Amino acid sequence: MFSGLSAFPLTPMRGDAPDSHRFIRLVERLADAGVQSIGALGSTGNYAYLTLEERLRMTRIAVDHAAGVPVMVSVGAVRTRDVLMLAEGAQRAGVRALLLAPVSYQPLTEDEVFGLYQTVAHHCDVPLCIYDNAATTHFTFTDALYQRLAQLPAVCSIKLPGSPLAAPAGRERVEKLRALLPSRIKLGVSGDMFAQAGLRAGCDVWYSVVGGLYPRLALRLLRGAREDGQQDADFLSDLEPLWTLFRGHGSLRVVAALAVFSGLLDEPPLPAPLKMLPAQEQQQIRALLPVLEAWEAA
Amino acid sequence: MFSGLSAFPLTPMRGDAPDSHRFIRLVERLADAGVQSIGALGSTGNYAYLTLEERLRMTRIAVDHAAGVPVMVSVGAVRTRDVLMLAEGAQRAGVRALLLAPVSYQPLTEDEVFGLYQTVAHHCDVPLCIYDNAATTHFTFTDALYQRLAQLPAVCSIKLPGSPLAAPAGRERVEKLRALLPSRIKLGVSGDMFAQAGLRAGCDVWYSVVGGLYPRLALRLLRGAREDGQQDADFLSDLEPLWTLFRGHGSLRVVAALAVFSGLLDEPPLPAPLKMLPAQEQQQIRALLPVLEAWEAA
Repeated sequence: MFSGLSAFPLTPMRGDAPDSHRFIRLVERLADAGVQSIGALGSTGNYAYLTLEERLRMTRIAVDHAAGVPVMVSVGAVRTRDVLMLAEGAQRAGVRALLLAPVSYQPLTEDEVFGLYQTVAHHCDVPLCIYDNAATTHFTFTDALYQRLAQLPAVCSIKLPGSPLAAPAGRERVEKLRALLPSRIKLGVSGDMFAQAGLRAGCDVWYSVVGGLYPRLALRLLRGAREDGQQDADFLSDLEPLWTLFRGHGSLRVVAALAVFSGLLDEPPLPAPLKMLPAQEQQQIRALLPVLEAWEAA
Repeated sequence: MFSGLSAFPLTPMRGDAPDSHRFIRLVERLADAGVQSIGALGSTGNYAYLTLEERLRMTRIAVDHAAGVPVMVSVGAVRTRDVLMLAEGAQRAGVRALLLAPVSYQPLTEDEVFGLYQTVAHHCDVPLCIYDNAATTHFTFTDALYQRLAQLPAVCSIKLPGSPLAAPAGRERVEKLRALLPSRIKLGVSGDMFAQAGLRAGCDVWYSVVGGLYPRLALRLLRGAREDGQQDADFLSDLEPLWTLFRGHGSLRVVAALAVFSGLLDEPPLPAPLKMLPAQEQQQIRALLPVLEAWEAA
């Protein structure tokens, strides 16, 4: 579950509701490409915008159409009660891991966040991945909290923010975490622009947004960064404009536009108040589309 | 609606659900004290932790038991669809204003936030108050956005963060906003420790957490700051430890503990993962209780 490419698909929308038909196509596309796992209903999958019922329904669809590829699903919510309900439903649906971010409204204390993970760990039978993403949760994990959480036997991975994994400090950061945490805890890099650096620094898994739309492209990046140590320079430089767009506008809005422009989706999967990017950025994304599709098909 | 003391009550809980009986008592306590308006289901009222159905039920209770005191209710949610549903239900229940924060998961752009307010303004028949609270929404309003939003006829007030209203810059800040915004827009100070400064700087209304539990104490502070310009020095210095606790732990957790220790509530209204403060802070709050109750009764 916690190695290689973990691909995070969009959750397509039709009007106000998730579009099951299109979601099945995205999940099948990932399974066909041979990703190591699927991270359904992550931030990229709009989990925070769907009702609990919609989330459980899409979870069942992901598991049923993943052709045996392990599925992890995000169960974050501002209330522990809702997290537990989602965790129970997701396990019944057959997920192989739960991804949990400390989603907040009132800023949370370290003790409250520990209590959340402790409660969920106590109630779940599948591995738990800590989702550290201060950009959406506004909670900052300390290494001391990582250590405390790693004592919960259910906790098996951390989805790390990518920036501290960038070269040249990345390797040192990974080594520090390895020294602090039991070997059971698999380290995952997120923030696709940091994937190459994070994987080279020794991360076990890449939690990937671009891999949710272009799994073959992402697998190429993974292989180049890790297995053979070789990376095509043209390939890397072709990805630079994508990372620039991710940095400027958030990966969700960019991947949503790519999915629409490529014809994979009819509508941008951006529940209001989220909006499509302005015309100028849309043009940049359209220009990038053939380049990405060529690498996906290569 | 947008003048004097707008008191924000807690939403009492019994187990997982809001406690209607205790909520009625809190609302009646505010109406009896003669507050100018009631801000039900604000951040202090845990709106972000309740289901849409619970929020509408508590809204109806607030209006029905406010004895004619105008009620404003918070309709914030991460999805515009939910905001509109809440706004419609709240208006049907008889609220006199809607309070709206740009609650987010994906960080929002200025354009997305404007779009949210524009859509809600278009659908609502009662005044709309902009809820600017970066601590919970992680969105920072610019003055340019205030100006743009003030062009929506429904927008009638801004619940301002308190810190920029502190002396000596507070008066200048209020004058700047008055110059930028139409006179219809009433300025409200929040962050109770800044209330005295904000009111002296010329704010129209105080959106108050402490006033939701101790309305008479808050009305005394309001009068001293505004009407007669006199303030009892003992009174102000007695409040200092409360502001220190608010600063350190957030006003919700402190007022929740006061409500329990005073016997007004049986359980802390803190849905998990939120927790009661540690023992040491609880002791400080217990020590403060008789002082606050004496001023409330004075």
